[in-house]
Amino acid sequence: MSVANLAPKPARRATAESMAQKQREISVSEFFTKNRHLLGFDNPAKALLTTVKEAVDNSLDACEEAGILPTLLVEIFEISENRYRIAVEDNGPGIVKEQIPKIFAKLLYGSKFHRLKQARGQQGIGISAAGLYAMLTTGKPILILSKTGKGRSARKVELRIDTRKNQPDVLKEEQIEWDKDHGTRVELELVGTYRGGRTGVDAYLEQTVVANPHLELEYRPPRGGEPQQYPRASHELPREAHEIKPHPHGVELGMLLKLMQDAQRMTVKAALVDSFSRVSPALAQSVCAAAHVKPTKKAPDLSGEEVERLHKALGEVKVLAPPATCVVPIGEDLIVAGLKRRYIGADYFSTTRPPAVYRGNPFVVECGIAYGGDLALEEPAEVLRFANRVPLQYQPKACAISEAVYELNWKNYGLGQPRGSLPIGPMAIFVHLASVWVPFTSEAKEAVAHYPELLREITLALQECGRRLAQSLRARARAESEAKRKSLFEPRW
Amino acid sequence: MSVANLAPKPARRATAESMAQKQREISVSEFFTKNRHLLGFDNPAKALLTTVKEAVDNSLDACEEAGILPTLLVEIFEISENRYRIAVEDNGPGIVKEQIPKIFAKLLYGSKFHRLKQARGQQGIGISAAGLYAMLTTGKPILILSKTGKGRSARKVELRIDTRKNQPDVLKEEQIEWDKDHGTRVELELVGTYRGGRTGVDAYLEQTVVANPHLELEYRPPRGGEPQQYPRASHELPREAHEIKPHPHGVELGMLLKLMQDAQRMTVKAALVDSFSRVSPALAQSVCAAAHVKPTKKAPDLSGEEVERLHKALGEVKVLAPPATCVVPIGEDLIVAGLKRRYIGADYFSTTRPPAVYRGNPFVVECGIAYGGDLALEEPAEVLRFANRVPLQYQPKACAISEAVYELNWKNYGLGQPRGSLPIGPMAIFVHLASVWVPFTSEAKEAVAHYPELLREITLALQECGRRLAQSLRARARAESEAKRKSLFEPRW
Repeated sequence: MSVANLAPKPARRATAESMAQKQREISVSEFFTKNRHLLGFDNPAKALLTTVKEAVDNSLDACEEAGILPTLLVEIFEISENRYRIAVEDNGPGIVKEQIPKIFAKLLYGSKFHRLKQARGQQGIGISAAGLYAMLTTGKPILILSKTGKGRSARKVELRIDTRKNQPDVLKEEQIEWDKDHGTRVELELVGTYRGGRTGVDAYLEQTVVANPHLELEYRPPRGGEPQQYPRASHELPREAHEIKPHPHGVELGMLLKLMQDAQRMTVKAALVDSFSRVSPALAQSVCAAAHVKPTKKAPDLSGEEVERLHKALGEVKVLAPPATCVVPIGEDLIVAGLKRRYIGADYFSTTRPPAVYRGNPFVVECGIAYGGDLALEEPAEVLRFANRVPLQYQPKACAISEAVYELNWKNYGLGQPRGSLPIGPMAIFVHLASVWVPFTSEAKEAVAHYPELLREITLALQECGRRLAQSLRARARAESEAKRKSLFEPRW
Repeated sequence: MSVANLAPKPARRATAESMAQKQREISVSEFFTKNRHLLGFDNPAKALLTTVKEAVDNSLDACEEAGILPTLLVEIFEISENRYRIAVEDNGPGIVKEQIPKIFAKLLYGSKFHRLKQARGQQGIGISAAGLYAMLTTGKPILILSKTGKGRSARKVELRIDTRKNQPDVLKEEQIEWDKDHGTRVELELVGTYRGGRTGVDAYLEQTVVANPHLELEYRPPRGGEPQQYPRASHELPREAHEIKPHPHGVELGMLLKLMQDAQRMTVKAALVDSFSRVSPALAQSVCAAAHVKPTKKAPDLSGEEVERLHKALGEVKVLAPPATCVVPIGEDLIVAGLKRRYIGADYFSTTRPPAVYRGNPFVVECGIAYGGDLALEEPAEVLRFANRVPLQYQPKACAISEAVYELNWKNYGLGQPRGSLPIGPMAIFVHLASVWVPFTSEAKEAVAHYPELLREITLALQECGRRLAQSLRARARAESEAKRKSLFEPRW
């Protein structure tokens, strides 16, 4: 490394000291303001869709968690060109007044991140990010109306986010009367674009209704459009998803270290049973034996090497798969009911796979096909992607679900398919992934990451539906040729 | 909405009160631990690459900011199967001791986020995220050695991240002697996979050297591989990038509101001049006039409507493009010097476009082509993508740079090209985007987002290089046919 010494030494520009003065903390609100495209707010059309989506996700999650059959109202008002006011109202359990500001005006806050339980929301970012975007583009605060029960008064709150601190800033707060037993209404004003098509709000709501047959929805579109009513297709709430503990096969060494350090006065054995799903006292005992660790030792006293041995033993021991009760599929019948709401007079096929596991996380894949009826004849199939009952409308090329559809050889099922493309026919393909933790490729939750275990299950589900479709197509072809043959022998007069 | 009333009322599961008890803050460290794939730590191979990359990015930024010709050492030790220790050492300005913990063990901390200045790092996440991943997979702390000048003693610090608080946890700190004038060395132990190919560390370093001709690098690969020495190809530091203020055409309403509110006792006119680049007092005056706002009014006293009018007027007024001095391209000669370091005996073409602007952010696109020499003959062209001199190795399909390469009709330049694919030939295509703010599609900084202004400039740069290549190919073909013709008339004996 001698060449450098021959070169002229350039003048110093900054020093460690001058650089130190510029270093400071970045609040997560500032980060996502600058990087709002990461959250699905790249352009006005997507921003409008994402806002509706985040509000609807929250409403549905809250209703289901409280055991209430959801009745939602979605309103979009056009205020001026490119400026809209969005309102989403639910009949959910409402929000206690102390929590309203943080839930709607603090990023990374919520109840869903720190648990393993199937839900639409996962991060504690969505609705606050919508508020952030609204504020950024129109300067208007987010408005919340919430009531937690009959006989109680409702709370009306106007909020802003203090981006520098990532803290809510309550502008106005009052008690009002609301002629509703319980529920929450959120209103945001933002710069947006309202448009139709595959990535529009209308398509989003239509698909939401397909995957949520228990949802009753009224939609009032902007520009005096006709209000849309979607009555419930099912009067049963989905079974409640159980919260689970992490599966021992998925845990990382650093996480295990932390669990043991935080176990206070528990023994290693007790800490293992307490921290993981499917780890019985007997199993914990045998893991300790395999790792040459005393099961009665206090967990926080373990040395680094001991935890490493435990980690290795945990990864090798036979453990039952996580309990399937933590994942709630839609179910074969309700998939068909959902498809019937959207595609009239078609043939319907559906399948729900048994639960499987990726990285310790249980999941279920379901597939449905609608064929014929009012679907267009010689078009590429329509693909409807869902994760925890939420439609995914952007980034199909980055999504494991689309990849599985593209990669499948649909010619096996009697359909045309240009190489590496969608099958051709009057067909809609519905795929739903339900999991305690959906691995999205970005915070905008637009596409599912390519885990091999997921791809495999999606493919198997598609194949099952494909086979049933092929059977039906063959039966129909036979019937037709039979009818034709008969007609040849029938007298023409 | 009466259907709901006919249905049996399902049992309540949770209430607003019981749900409130589960709501809590999520630290940004917890968020990115669970979502580490967003930062480029999806799998062991990528994790190893990302770690090297974040450390090298920081070293190069620090050296350039301090006006020091960078001399880097990258070492990778294999500790056991899938476990590596990575060390990156620079001759940069060092880091003052108070800042070391936060820079390396707190996410969203740094000097680069809150300014508009071209740099490799943008977010204040990268190196801490690498430390987080190391800790998660091996439980080992991150080790820093830093010295800020001759005659001073060096600081050795062992750090962990307290993920629950997103705060550094200093495990050990000592003063030691280090036989180096100044610099920083960072060491991390992590679960990783070392592999070659397009997305490996070797490819990353080779490309880094191409885009940074002023870099002197020594690389010691694992498993007793031969150390690689890359001497400098240029002894001149890139010109220092100037920090700029936002351009008025890019500002959002909410941002303008905030700027005005934070302007303390400034007048509107003064606040406009102070907040933006290219806004002179005269221009500020005419913006105020167009918006019907009194220029001498105190900025924080503006009403919401007044700010909206100012915003509109700012968007419509004619303003000079941002100063080009804030963007530092590599330059046509040094691109060729860089390509020569990697592709021997080829023909080289390069072009640097004039500065342009997207969303108020200045940028420059450069392109280089190496053709012939030791490049493979009938293969698809190799594409090297760079943003602020950093190679982009993943997600080519999601990147605006690749898209521009695919979309260009290379047949115009005498090259074969299967439809929608890369051109065929013994060719490497180099594209560099330099900007005060590169719009990446994810925090992992793997691909450039599809802004039309960017795509346009990339295409123009590719076309310019393509034309020069075509000229040279035609000249060569003429020379060859000339030689052939001559040889026909030459006596054979």
